[in-house]
Amino acid sequence: MIIIYGCGQMGQHLARKLGKQELNVTVIDPERLNLESLGPEFKGEMIMGLGIDKDVLKKAHISEAEVFLAVARDINTNIMCALVAKRLFHVPRVIARIEDPTLVELFCKFQIETISPTTAAAGQIERMILGQKG
Amino acid sequence: MIIIYGCGQMGQHLARKLGKQELNVTVIDPERLNLESLGPEFKGEMIMGLGIDKDVLKKAHISEAEVFLAVARDINTNIMCALVAKRLFHVPRVIARIEDPTLVELFCKFQIETISPTTAAAGQIERMILGQKG
Repeated sequence: MIIIYGCGQMGQHLARKLGKQELNVTVIDPERLNLESLGPEFKGEMIMGLGIDKDVLKKAHISEAEVFLAVARDINTNIMCALVAKRLFHVPRVIARIEDPTLVELFCKFQIETISPTTAAAGQIERMILGQKG
Repeated sequence: MIIIYGCGQMGQHLARKLGKQELNVTVIDPERLNLESLGPEFKGEMIMGLGIDKDVLKKAHISEAEVFLAVARDINTNIMCALVAKRLFHVPRVIARIEDPTLVELFCKFQIETISPTTAAAGQIERMILGQKG
């Protein structure tokens, strides 16, 4: 089971894509409108609340989660949620969206994987150009 | 020759990576401090100025560029720069960093490729998870 915290552009994209893979996906976001943006095609669970709220996380059955994705726009929120998921609920795999490269090493110590949209996009541009170059 | 407009986190990342590939890289940014962040290891050209300023672009020898990357943080700036590079200077390959998916189709008509950091990061997370799943 996969829990996605943050139903902005990235969270929605992931929820739709992973949902189509017939993975069991639960999305958490404090804003009802964000959750509603997923539309009727999304068949997973939607829970309104904060990703650092233990009651919200229990409602999302976090103890059964294999993967927790902290992909809110606010980086500090992601840091907090990822730490709660990893340290309190021992989710096997936690991936957090962060931009600050200095945090990557720290997160690594906590066994939290990180993803930076800027670096991901730069990598994609690199492949586009170097692919062209040969 | 590759011109990178915007020397923020993404521009710097690309300048360093592409520079190491021994590609001829020129970086343009209106802020001196941004350019200086590249450090002495970067051996390419650095030009201070705006990416929509024709004189700045000529100084960067845009007529010789094979690739123009508009990767400033401000999306409107990228839109303008990419259009100038493509329509006025006919750079063969123009790639712009944008987030709005509704603009992708429009850019496609102008033969400008687009990259969205959010979508790129979501794709990378997908590969991380689905790789694990099988």
